[in-house]
Amino acid sequence: MRLVRTVSELQTLADRERAAGRRIALVPTMGALHAGHLSLVEAARARADLVWLSVFVNPTQFDEPADLAAYPEVLEEDLAACRAAGVDLVFAPAAAEMYPDGAQTWVEVTDLTAPLCGASRPGHFRGVTTVVAKLLLAAKPHVAVFGEKDFQQLAVIRRMVQDLHFDVEIAAAPIAREPDGLALSSRNRNLREDARSQATALAAALGAAERAVAAGERRSAALLHLVTTELSKAPDAAIDYAELRDPDSLETAPPVLAGPTLLALAVTFPAARGERVRLIDNRVLRPLPRSR
Amino acid sequence: MRLVRTVSELQTLADRERAAGRRIALVPTMGALHAGHLSLVEAARARADLVWLSVFVNPTQFDEPADLAAYPEVLEEDLAACRAAGVDLVFAPAAAEMYPDGAQTWVEVTDLTAPLCGASRPGHFRGVTTVVAKLLLAAKPHVAVFGEKDFQQLAVIRRMVQDLHFDVEIAAAPIAREPDGLALSSRNRNLREDARSQATALAAALGAAERAVAAGERRSAALLHLVTTELSKAPDAAIDYAELRDPDSLETAPPVLAGPTLLALAVTFPAARGERVRLIDNRVLRPLPRSR
Repeated sequence: MRLVRTVSELQTLADRERAAGRRIALVPTMGALHAGHLSLVEAARARADLVWLSVFVNPTQFDEPADLAAYPEVLEEDLAACRAAGVDLVFAPAAAEMYPDGAQTWVEVTDLTAPLCGASRPGHFRGVTTVVAKLLLAAKPHVAVFGEKDFQQLAVIRRMVQDLHFDVEIAAAPIAREPDGLALSSRNRNLREDARSQATALAAALGAAERAVAAGERRSAALLHLVTTELSKAPDAAIDYAELRDPDSLETAPPVLAGPTLLALAVTFPAARGERVRLIDNRVLRPLPRSR
Repeated sequence: MRLVRTVSELQTLADRERAAGRRIALVPTMGALHAGHLSLVEAARARADLVWLSVFVNPTQFDEPADLAAYPEVLEEDLAACRAAGVDLVFAPAAAEMYPDGAQTWVEVTDLTAPLCGASRPGHFRGVTTVVAKLLLAAKPHVAVFGEKDFQQLAVIRRMVQDLHFDVEIAAAPIAREPDGLALSSRNRNLREDARSQATALAAALGAAERAVAAGERRSAALLHLVTTELSKAPDAAIDYAELRDPDSLETAPPVLAGPTLLALAVTFPAARGERVRLIDNRVLRPLPRSR
């Protein structure tokens, strides 16, 4: 497995592999790899000859300095996990490599970044789209794989790729979960010990909404009431948002759901140290066809 | 010569040429081609095996709807000029091809776009960087050629390419001029007949400043006084800006020039019809070494 630190080396390798007719899949990560990332690696392997994984804790997508400071950085562990998973190349640039001296160029998606995490975390998505644009231009992959846990991020990146004409396929991988339902996240390890069990409330709330929809419920207010009731069972949870939105436009869902609808949650919990830990989770609800 | 209308066809051709080891040079234009553009074609040919030229009047870089409406569109003439100049491929997409339905992604360079044309034309450079990013991703060139007449645009594009890690060389071609010194521009044809001769005032002002610097002048205020005096000889000219700036950072030059300094002019003149015509021109002044 090759470790690459510079953009120019990566571009040279990408040109060589492309010229040889080999298909490259990129898995962009911020490191602190867990089984969720490894499921992205598997999805990447199914779509390409080579799996390249980037590890870069992108400073510009953190709206809170404390959140950036608390983000785990464990490159040696990550490299071992990549080796074990058969990753072909890890790209782990320094911040000064990705953001050259005097850097002042931003890539921004407007409407899709306004609600949900965009409303809670000003500037977050501008940082995401800027760094993903840089990574796609640096690695020149045929396909890039992102997780559905960051549903809004996936929608925003798809929009950016389409609008700017990046010649790359964006593939989505389903949310990987712990046995008790908690969505895998690098942030989970920052939870205060007694908050870890409370954090299953997100998956429980999604499941409750899904069951209600399967039983015929299609009223937004009733579903959101169910969700907040479920989340309130976790005594230390604080809801950042719990919303029903159109899965494509991310516009607010109508009072009575008419088709597939995103249920998106962001909830904070006490941290082992420092600021609270913010977890997100989501599910697309599929209401039954209306009876006539 | 091939005429291409869609991004996907262009990308397929680019992949094929790159795989065959041929080097592609892109000349992005807004059409209404003149000898200045053809000098860019020559510069492109010197740097690549294939010269591709794009013709796209980019709506998002016009801050004034009237300016967009008045911009000449003469594709048949442009295609004939490209054929005569030995251009290999013309990319002439519709607006809906470059900006797909629902497009909402912007590429923006901040500091370098604040002064000069950025101050006069809000949003202009955001439109330029966005469309150039799209064109580079669509045509996948090894090199792209821009004219030095749009000095600030060239600086902004170089910055964007460096910051986002576009794997493309940006080449600059010197300003092409009429025999009387007027810098070639598609806008020249919109000048009111009696304003055409007055428009030589820009080149005359640059020449006067250059001669003064060659004679030892290095005081900014004296040089700008000379420039405005020269421009005031054109009775219908209205100065938008006349400024001395650092050629790299575009920061305002010091009161006494210490090294190479950009003299940048934007001046409006009466139009044959409709709004006034805004012309730009520039020169890098090179003060003599200080005597000790």
